[in-house]
Amino acid sequence: MKNIAIGVDVGGTNTAIGVVDTEGHVLVKSNIPTPSHGDINLFISEMSLAIKELINSAELMNEDIEVLGIGIGAPNGNYYNGTVEYAPNLSFKGVIPFVKLLREKFPDMKAIALTNDANAAALGEMIYGGAKGMKNFVMFTLGTGVGSGIVVDGNMVYGHDGFAGECGHTTLIPDGRLCGCGAKGHVEAYCSAPGMKRTAFEIMVRDNVTNSLLSDKSFMELDSRMIFEAAERGDKVALEVFEQTGKWLGQALADTVHHLSPEAIFLFGGPTAAGEYIFKPTRESMEAHLLPIFKNKIKVLPSQLKAGDAAIVGASALVHKELQR
Amino acid sequence: MKNIAIGVDVGGTNTAIGVVDTEGHVLVKSNIPTPSHGDINLFISEMSLAIKELINSAELMNEDIEVLGIGIGAPNGNYYNGTVEYAPNLSFKGVIPFVKLLREKFPDMKAIALTNDANAAALGEMIYGGAKGMKNFVMFTLGTGVGSGIVVDGNMVYGHDGFAGECGHTTLIPDGRLCGCGAKGHVEAYCSAPGMKRTAFEIMVRDNVTNSLLSDKSFMELDSRMIFEAAERGDKVALEVFEQTGKWLGQALADTVHHLSPEAIFLFGGPTAAGEYIFKPTRESMEAHLLPIFKNKIKVLPSQLKAGDAAIVGASALVHKELQR
Repeated sequence: MKNIAIGVDVGGTNTAIGVVDTEGHVLVKSNIPTPSHGDINLFISEMSLAIKELINSAELMNEDIEVLGIGIGAPNGNYYNGTVEYAPNLSFKGVIPFVKLLREKFPDMKAIALTNDANAAALGEMIYGGAKGMKNFVMFTLGTGVGSGIVVDGNMVYGHDGFAGECGHTTLIPDGRLCGCGAKGHVEAYCSAPGMKRTAFEIMVRDNVTNSLLSDKSFMELDSRMIFEAAERGDKVALEVFEQTGKWLGQALADTVHHLSPEAIFLFGGPTAAGEYIFKPTRESMEAHLLPIFKNKIKVLPSQLKAGDAAIVGASALVHKELQR
Repeated sequence: MKNIAIGVDVGGTNTAIGVVDTEGHVLVKSNIPTPSHGDINLFISEMSLAIKELINSAELMNEDIEVLGIGIGAPNGNYYNGTVEYAPNLSFKGVIPFVKLLREKFPDMKAIALTNDANAAALGEMIYGGAKGMKNFVMFTLGTGVGSGIVVDGNMVYGHDGFAGECGHTTLIPDGRLCGCGAKGHVEAYCSAPGMKRTAFEIMVRDNVTNSLLSDKSFMELDSRMIFEAAERGDKVALEVFEQTGKWLGQALADTVHHLSPEAIFLFGGPTAAGEYIFKPTRESMEAHLLPIFKNKIKVLPSQLKAGDAAIVGASALVHKELQR
């Protein structure tokens, strides 16, 4: 008997679905488009069909499997209500009763649960990854935005209304850069992948740099991978981008430490592929901002989840957490 | 039968001890000096004697009482270890096993527990005050410093090593004012009572104000009560101090909301006596910094604990929380 959980990651353009075993390995996976038509019932039908096909495939590979449940990671996902609420990048408007609609398609499934994508990543780290056995840790996901998931005493923190863990929207620089949410100076506007691009241009503007490997890229095309590659080749602007991003991120992590006193903070996402370029200045800046009682205690670690599968694997972890309740 | 708990508040110069009933009323209380001699064993003996005398007094008032335990609020108090660790304002150096030493004097006491003063205040609010029935809330204590206590799912957040809830040491203004802890730009350097004094002088310096009610006060003597009294008389500098302090505090509260999604944030301490002078700009600034999913949801409320007794009452609440475990 092999226990498996279904992980569903609802993204802006694409929804990834996978069958995940108890070690966090993806046995089979598939993709369906996240529709732009706004018809949630149609999307739930398509998703249900894809899930059933995947379960069939998994059964062909291993005849004796038990499906424990379905976990979903979605933007603006509310764990308490099983809803997706006013997600700006999805075509489904208002409050969508996601879990309820999926439950109608899978009435006998033991557990169906939903949370936002960063919380799902934190659960993945706890169930399968580097946070196994940790009771107090925080996950920061750096990508198009900056998300976070908080674990206290072994449980996800959802807060009063299910939306806790939005550390990417704490204020880093008062009245600073415009954030995607409409407010100013949030961490996300500095430490996300697009934030790093903005920093690269800020440095080129400040020093009028025309001979950087980044100088011939447009504001549209420059991305964090190009900055990493330029840093590897010793480009000064690129190296300063990592240095400065680490300073900012370290300040943000220190704020989180002062709230929660975690054992570790895990970093996940594209920019973390740059390894010590980003980890070193982040750790140094965090330490500089900490109270003495916290200094040299808090680990800042790379996520142990595999980049490509992390969202699916994280979502599937929600099933195991749900069944432990 | 009347159940009572002992609350002990260890301050820099004075230690207050009270007998508190289950409604949070202080039946009898006394004070002993917090010694400067650094001899913890002598201090524990004096404290134990004072506690026993108070219990005797309470028994004289009401012959059928049961003492449930002793709760202690102390600076740098560590709940997990029952220790006071490297408290800068106490004469006891290093790590002091406070609970262990007190336990030797009261071997039959059901519960003896210790935490820091802001956590004790949060517990007081939950057991006896305005947070009764709330599962997710945060308490900010504004005084000489800015402390905080965080409650998630009905439990205090202590974190990995027992020191969680230091929101006063998150960064408000990067490279800003020097904080008492040695770092720069922390919330405490702006939103504490001395922070408000610094703001008053900042405004007088900026606008060269010689005709404010605060203009004839020295940097040493000006305090937050004088600023409140001047505001009541329409003094422009004093009014701007509250406006600006609220803006800063609101930014800090928004950061906390983005971490924890609480139902409410309670404000406690001297500066909150100014009522709407401080609450109105704080609420407005917090709302301006929040993600849409949090707007118009989070209550910012004055603490319901009586100012004079709050520290004792809060410390005694730790006993009830301990016995619920």
